[in-house]
Amino acid sequence: MAAAGPARAQMPDTILYGVAYYDEYTPVDRVDDDARMMKAAGISVVRIAESTWGTLEPQPGVFDFRHVDRMLAAMHRQSIKVIVGTPTYAVPTWLARQHPNVLVVRPDGIRAQYGPRQNMDITDPDYRAAAERVIVALVNHVKDHPAVIGYQLDNETKAYNTSGPAVQAAFARAIRLKWPDLNALNKAWGLDYWSNRINRWEDFPSTNGSINASMSGAFAAYQRSLVTDFLTWQAQLVRAHARPGQFLTQNFDLGWRGHSYGIQPEVDHWKAARPLDIAGIDIYHPSQDKLTGVEIAFGGDVTRSMRNGQNYLVLETQAQGFPHWTPYPGQLRLQAFSHLASGAQMVEYWHWATTANAIETYWRGLLSQDYKPNAAYAEAKGIGADFARLGPKLAGMTKRNRVAVYVSNAAQTAFDAFKPDGADYNQVVRPFYDALYRMNVEADILSPDSTASLDDYKLILVPALYAASDAEIARLNDYARRGGHLLYTFKSGFSDENTKVRYATQPGAIAEAAGVTYQEFTIPVGVKLADNPFEVADVDNAPRWWMEMLKPTTAQVVARYKHPSWPAAAAMTRNNWGKGEVSYVGFMPSDALAEKIVAAEVARAGVMPSVPGARFPVIVRGGRLTNGHMVRYVLNYSSNPQTMTAPRAGIELLHGQKVVSGASLNLAPWGVAVIEEE
Amino acid sequence: MAAAGPARAQMPDTILYGVAYYDEYTPVDRVDDDARMMKAAGISVVRIAESTWGTLEPQPGVFDFRHVDRMLAAMHRQSIKVIVGTPTYAVPTWLARQHPNVLVVRPDGIRAQYGPRQNMDITDPDYRAAAERVIVALVNHVKDHPAVIGYQLDNETKAYNTSGPAVQAAFARAIRLKWPDLNALNKAWGLDYWSNRINRWEDFPSTNGSINASMSGAFAAYQRSLVTDFLTWQAQLVRAHARPGQFLTQNFDLGWRGHSYGIQPEVDHWKAARPLDIAGIDIYHPSQDKLTGVEIAFGGDVTRSMRNGQNYLVLETQAQGFPHWTPYPGQLRLQAFSHLASGAQMVEYWHWATTANAIETYWRGLLSQDYKPNAAYAEAKGIGADFARLGPKLAGMTKRNRVAVYVSNAAQTAFDAFKPDGADYNQVVRPFYDALYRMNVEADILSPDSTASLDDYKLILVPALYAASDAEIARLNDYARRGGHLLYTFKSGFSDENTKVRYATQPGAIAEAAGVTYQEFTIPVGVKLADNPFEVADVDNAPRWWMEMLKPTTAQVVARYKHPSWPAAAAMTRNNWGKGEVSYVGFMPSDALAEKIVAAEVARAGVMPSVPGARFPVIVRGGRLTNGHMVRYVLNYSSNPQTMTAPRAGIELLHGQKVVSGASLNLAPWGVAVIEEE
Amino acid sequence: MAAAGPARAQMPDTILYGVAYYDEYTPVDRVDDDARMMKAAGISVVRIAESTWGTLEPQPGVFDFRHVDRMLAAMHRQSIKVIVGTPTYAVPTWLARQHPNVLVVRPDGIRAQYGPRQNMDITDPDYRAAAERVIVALVNHVKDHPAVIGYQLDNETKAYNTSGPAVQAAFARAIRLKWPDLNALNKAWGLDYWSNRINRWEDFPSTNGSINASMSGAFAAYQRSLVTDFLTWQAQLVRAHARPGQFLTQNFDLGWRGHSYGIQPEVDHWKAARPLDIAGIDIYHPSQDKLTGVEIAFGGDVTRSMRNGQNYLVLETQAQGFPHWTPYPGQLRLQAFSHLASGAQMVEYWHWATTANAIETYWRGLLSQDYKPNAAYAEAKGIGADFARLGPKLAGMTKRNRVAVYVSNAAQTAFDAFKPDGADYNQVVRPFYDALYRMNVEADILSPDSTASLDDYKLILVPALYAASDAEIARLNDYARRGGHLLYTFKSGFSDENTKVRYATQPGAIAEAAGVTYQEFTIPVGVKLADNPFEVADVDNAPRWWMEMLKPTTAQVVARYKHPSWPAAAAMTRNNWGKGEVSYVGFMPSDALAEKIVAAEVARAGVMPSVPGARFPVIVRGGRLTNGHMVRYVLNYSSNPQTMTAPRAGIELLHGQKVVSGASLNLAPWGVAVIEEE
Repeated sequence: MAAAGPARAQMPDTILYGVAYYDEYTPVDRVDDDARMMKAAGISVVRIAESTWGTLEPQPGVFDFRHVDRMLAAMHRQSIKVIVGTPTYAVPTWLARQHPNVLVVRPDGIRAQYGPRQNMDITDPDYRAAAERVIVALVNHVKDHPAVIGYQLDNETKAYNTSGPAVQAAFARAIRLKWPDLNALNKAWGLDYWSNRINRWEDFPSTNGSINASMSGAFAAYQRSLVTDFLTWQAQLVRAHARPGQFLTQNFDLGWRGHSYGIQPEVDHWKAARPLDIAGIDIYHPSQDKLTGVEIAFGGDVTRSMRNGQNYLVLETQAQGFPHWTPYPGQLRLQAFSHLASGAQMVEYWHWATTANAIETYWRGLLSQDYKPNAAYAEAKGIGADFARLGPKLAGMTKRNRVAVYVSNAAQTAFDAFKPDGADYNQVVRPFYDALYRMNVEADILSPDSTASLDDYKLILVPALYAASDAEIARLNDYARRGGHLLYTFKSGFSDENTKVRYATQPGAIAEAAGVTYQEFTIPVGVKLADNPFEVADVDNAPRWWMEMLKPTTAQVVARYKHPSWPAAAAMTRNNWGKGEVSYVGFMPSDALAEKIVAAEVARAGVMPSVPGARFPVIVRGGRLTNGHMVRYVLNYSSNPQTMTAPRAGIELLHGQKVVSGASLNLAPWGVAVIEEE
Repeated sequence: MAAAGPARAQMPDTILYGVAYYDEYTPVDRVDDDARMMKAAGISVVRIAESTWGTLEPQPGVFDFRHVDRMLAAMHRQSIKVIVGTPTYAVPTWLARQHPNVLVVRPDGIRAQYGPRQNMDITDPDYRAAAERVIVALVNHVKDHPAVIGYQLDNETKAYNTSGPAVQAAFARAIRLKWPDLNALNKAWGLDYWSNRINRWEDFPSTNGSINASMSGAFAAYQRSLVTDFLTWQAQLVRAHARPGQFLTQNFDLGWRGHSYGIQPEVDHWKAARPLDIAGIDIYHPSQDKLTGVEIAFGGDVTRSMRNGQNYLVLETQAQGFPHWTPYPGQLRLQAFSHLASGAQMVEYWHWATTANAIETYWRGLLSQDYKPNAAYAEAKGIGADFARLGPKLAGMTKRNRVAVYVSNAAQTAFDAFKPDGADYNQVVRPFYDALYRMNVEADILSPDSTASLDDYKLILVPALYAASDAEIARLNDYARRGGHLLYTFKSGFSDENTKVRYATQPGAIAEAAGVTYQEFTIPVGVKLADNPFEVADVDNAPRWWMEMLKPTTAQVVARYKHPSWPAAAAMTRNNWGKGEVSYVGFMPSDALAEKIVAAEVARAGVMPSVPGARFPVIVRGGRLTNGHMVRYVLNYSSNPQTMTAPRAGIELLHGQKVVSGASLNLAPWGVAVIEEE
Repeated sequence: MAAAGPARAQMPDTILYGVAYYDEYTPVDRVDDDARMMKAAGISVVRIAESTWGTLEPQPGVFDFRHVDRMLAAMHRQSIKVIVGTPTYAVPTWLARQHPNVLVVRPDGIRAQYGPRQNMDITDPDYRAAAERVIVALVNHVKDHPAVIGYQLDNETKAYNTSGPAVQAAFARAIRLKWPDLNALNKAWGLDYWSNRINRWEDFPSTNGSINASMSGAFAAYQRSLVTDFLTWQAQLVRAHARPGQFLTQNFDLGWRGHSYGIQPEVDHWKAARPLDIAGIDIYHPSQDKLTGVEIAFGGDVTRSMRNGQNYLVLETQAQGFPHWTPYPGQLRLQAFSHLASGAQMVEYWHWATTANAIETYWRGLLSQDYKPNAAYAEAKGIGADFARLGPKLAGMTKRNRVAVYVSNAAQTAFDAFKPDGADYNQVVRPFYDALYRMNVEADILSPDSTASLDDYKLILVPALYAASDAEIARLNDYARRGGHLLYTFKSGFSDENTKVRYATQPGAIAEAAGVTYQEFTIPVGVKLADNPFEVADVDNAPRWWMEMLKPTTAQVVARYKHPSWPAAAAMTRNNWGKGEVSYVGFMPSDALAEKIVAAEVARAGVMPSVPGARFPVIVRGGRLTNGHMVRYVLNYSSNPQTMTAPRAGIELLHGQKVVSGASLNLAPWGVAVIEEE
């Protein structure tokens, strides 16, 4: 598949193995020692300089590149490449002192205090001016160094909920541009309710106290656009000064401010990734007995999908991480190859060594504060050696998935304004994605801003598309009409793109294609599915959080509810629609039900898992190598040995052993095999 | 019984069935369609215009009555009557922009943000001036329309905890008027404690940080007086412009800001109802398997009692309500007749159709956002038909209850300042009231501001009268002396009207009448009643939250505690007092104990339940019709069929069938029967 | 042992029995009645005047000593002595009105509201000037009254988290004095991290938003120094005006703002006690079935240790206290003698009678608001009589403990910045102290500021010495080298005195002395100790919150972990170090494990409990009387009778009965015996 735009710089042609490194934080002068230790472990790239503005520019316009120069020189001596981060996500003391307005004002009207990172207003002109000065100076200083292969723009950029008067005024101007007719705005947003009507643009109120999800949703979208604007601005700035061939990336992330791990509500990833050359991602996940690999798969699938199938960089992931994450032997290695299995071209730890002060003292790097070899370092050496040996072969793998999960930031924001029984959007998306993961059916992630063709997929799952325009829904329905399989869940289609509930039979524009309507819904208590249609354990045979009482029009009933007061209502339906099928799940299933529901759709769509019968904790993922062969990563996510029957002949690359079709493949606890098929 | 004052306008002479309606929020022009659908369902009244200030007055002094006129015309065409609400509880954008001071400043010193309703300072002069302008314009505009039968003043009015500098200054002035002697104030409030003494009026501090419950209680009472003042002001204003015969009402409510459902701590209902012609109420309650009817009964009894027995309007109640409230078939009908059983003259849903935007998108009306007939509408049609047919007969029912529950805002505020084990005042009031409800003994609710005669009652329950003057207690004791039965609970009489604990043997002024004293109390852990005197299950035979170690002086011991360290202490006593009896419960009983305790008092007072042996889930309530016959509403609050033996002959009005005395009356799940006795 | 400095005034030569008393809060004129009731109960001292500034100085510079004079006269008539408190911890209304800046500004930037006590900025010049005026006036007024034996400075003094701009500026100046080299500061605090670097002193940011535990820890230490400064200032002021021979004291406390009961994080007790003549303490503790006496012992041991073994005053403890604390019969008496058992020279209740208004209405004194004799008063009469009779004999008891627990405010603040699994410093300290308490091994409490000699102890327990300088650790290690027994727990030595994690093999400077290192740690889930080395119940044989994977270098392994992934790691080690031993516990043990671990160390150190075999709930504590005899307080902390074999002959003082060595001593529920041994 083609990338979202022509990459202005090339993807590395091997697998990179990296760490973030900060000479600034190091207790003694040991940059050359560290570079030697890295080299010994197969580390091939370091990321430097993000968050070090206060060191780089000790006073306004006064620059000190000593740390940068030391790192570039030391790494270059060991042939380690360098990604330079712009340092803009943590502001220096002097900037906050000089311009207190650079600190963000949040919806409670209170200005952030100095100290934390990511506490500035990314739209503030003084912040922008200072950021531009340091970016230009830094890029000009490093661009010609041969070690520098690319740049990371800022770090985990968000709008940080900036909501002060200036942002409010800018939002009102943006809305005025979008809605020339104030009456139309009042109607679309339902502002007559509770006297919130705006009769003159001058009366436009701050959104901070709003009880109107249409307004709040528009403001959330505006905040996301600020992130896209900011990254576009940094991209232009860096590109204008960088050496040709150096790439631009960003480390997006999926966990933020306590929402469930999943789609990021504060960034439009598909838009924000456009100004980049390569998308990057931070992937942090549970460990020890809670390690399942699903966050690695999901994060990878999202990131690869941002730029329509282009491989990506894991710019941060944990080595030792939190105290309760100290990895079991084998887990670091399993994780590393799991990233590759999703299409990562780089696995980079945050960070080389744990900082000795401040809030991340217990967020541990590959080394601890003693900077001595340890268990994690020993395991990394094996990984590094394998990456060095196999990287050129494994790099550039491409996937051709037949299943997609369709997500939407707009639907997410709208859905989360009215959480059913407290469950958020990702608590719907993830169980459906996770069901695919556990059954080893790989998926791409689509969004309204994807440039991918829907017709590339045999099955598209559409969880909780709560807010969407008629056109957006028509595009999905038409995909089914042309022969695709579509599964919508409850609450899809309920409101339009302005989070206005449709004045229509629900599920709105989906009703005809799905052949189903409903008027009533509730939060299920003591409700089951009649006759256990999916043959799950009794405790699992239940809706949770939400149930719609479906009435099929043209659809067939797949499942009904069992409750004394609503004996007739359907729970799930399936409808022929043109050459395809539209299924509708009117409730939130248990995890076990979700898996059975998804499995049935997968089978109906004619999608085959790569290894029949293999399921979690044995995970099989892969793609096509540049040599044309298929590669399969076989991953044991358990503390018990596992066995899998090899479906095809090939070579297990880690041990260089032949694999015979039909032979048993033994996996150690937390073990991994990489099979290049013939 | 006589009403609190002569009604200046008449109570409707039938049962009204209504909905709130907002042409302003309607997605398309469908006001005539809606009126026809209402007519078809028996809707006879709509409430309009509250909360629509921003539409009514789009700019200061510029009025737009188009929505109002459309609604009046459409309703009138269908002979549906209209109650017009003053729109003052949600301020327009332009008012907050023009006068930011209209937004309330709460005890934390922070001014409310624009957006929510009920966020203004009801004492602010700019708010008052603007409110007056819109009220006068609206009333003048609609008063002569024949459909308009009355007005609702504002909506669920509170003081919204207004505590800014202006309110603080006004409070200090009010206190100075009440307490000319500053030394007396210091003494009464105990201000010497922690140096809070006020030595000059100029030093009077803000109450916002107060740790003194006397001061806080006085400020809470002042805030309640602001509500009474505000409603009195609106009543005068509307009355001055309304057409004679149009009534004034208000929709009070009992659930607010997270306190337990019960007595409203923020409004003096008995005072605030005086400027009205008819009291109104919002009653929202649990549904599905949690529907018991007790909130309908309690809310009705409170509202009917506000104006000393005058019937009342249910201005808001749920049709579909929250998602987890979607009613089971039959529940909407059961609820409607339950309101009538308490004396409601109107049952009005909030609202006709669910709004498509904003915070109440999931607070569902009779219709959903599709405006199409649904299950709730179908059930309403049956209710509407019955109301239309039976309304003239059922309207004007009068009750003559022999039991009362005595409540007090002052006691509530004081009690809640020192919650025992976290339990609030309503958690004491409600279990005693609920015990009466479950045993089908109907009750009135008395307050210090009631004009009812105590001597009308055979039994008065006085839960937790924590703060009361000597005179207030003497009035209750004297009622017993004259022959009444009085039951006080723990903590009654503890402090005086200033929340100053009495310098006296506890329970203070009650001690002599109850023939009991105590010095010690604790929070019971592992305590039982000795010998299970009320014969309840062992798990229920226990005090909770509070126990006083009673020492009878002249009283008899009804129950003793069982605990190794306090073997001798009495738990409940009963004392002859003049011609009557005073019982004292020195602990908070379990629900089962409360029911047995109350049953014993009911029996001693010679009060008979209307249907011997009937108890929850079969609820029987009623009164005397204007034709002199008794009417009994028989209500099945369960999902199982129930049978009751009819105590007297009569006619079941819903089905027009004769009822023979002693015959079995069958009730469907969630079923209802209405019997007019011979 | 010698006191911290020469006492400028003498310790009372008997046991005082006291109450706090406030004529100001009394409902009627009854000071003489109260004094007579006190006399009858054996009350020999009252504390007056703290918190009564608003009464003492009704307007700026206008004094009114009537209440003080009345109390002094009435007490003197009954020969009751008086301790006068300076009234500075609750500011008058006029002061807050005149100088709003006296109210504290906390880290959120919001100024405290008027009302509560302890809400002022103790560094504010206007507050200090007003405080000086009232202190001088009060001391001059009372000093010559013969009843006045001493002064309490302020009350439970803290810095109340004062963090406004003035305090921030003063902190920055203090840091600049301490760190002349800004680069050194940046390095020590690790300020390069997240751009927090300070490149000019003018850029020094407020600490309020800091994410740097080095900075936060320094600011916490600075706040503690403000308490010491404030008490030193008050001490100098009072001493300059007091009559020679009158003592100065302060009531420190150990429970504050929700941290676990233990070491006080907001006061450097060892420093703050220096300007006093006698240390004082507030001891509040659970009651009823939760009464164990451990808080009385711990609080007493801390307070006695503050001034290196000098006895102390219990300036506040509960009589009836909270409602759920209403004491069982016998508990008040048990508590009183438990205080003496730890070295208290006075037991004073807060307070004589419960206040009738405000926040402490349910914090009950010896009397309730009726001021009548009650159960607590009756029990106090017995205590008072015993104190009067035995006081001269019991006063002046000295202890010579062989075990110490070493604590540190700096370690506490640093540890609590990174709580393992949410557990705070005191949750480590207390289980080790409590283990000693339950086995009747008495202990002193040492701190870095103690003047005691380490060599006086056979065993020193060092829980979680998370932040400490090399010199501090060397002092402890050297104690072991000279022959002492030292037990360090997990996390000790991890960071230096600036909360900078050591660039060294952990446990840093302890590693060599303990003969152990580690690199990995985690939060244990499903981990046990292999082979149950301490023979505890299986459920107790587990680490909690934290485990370090120890690798002994020269130490012996005492216990190993059992977990599939870390089979080899040691959990506890013991190392010969010079003439002594250093044990290291690499995990947080269960309470049962802690007791076994401590018991083993006690035995190895050759420390003998005073009564072999006696353990909780029978508590035995005591010391040497001034007559040279040993006294043992035998305390039954249970509701069951207990028997103990008397180890030595003596006289039971409360009943005047001879005790024969080896005889059975019977203790009633919650009973107490006091044995003077021969």
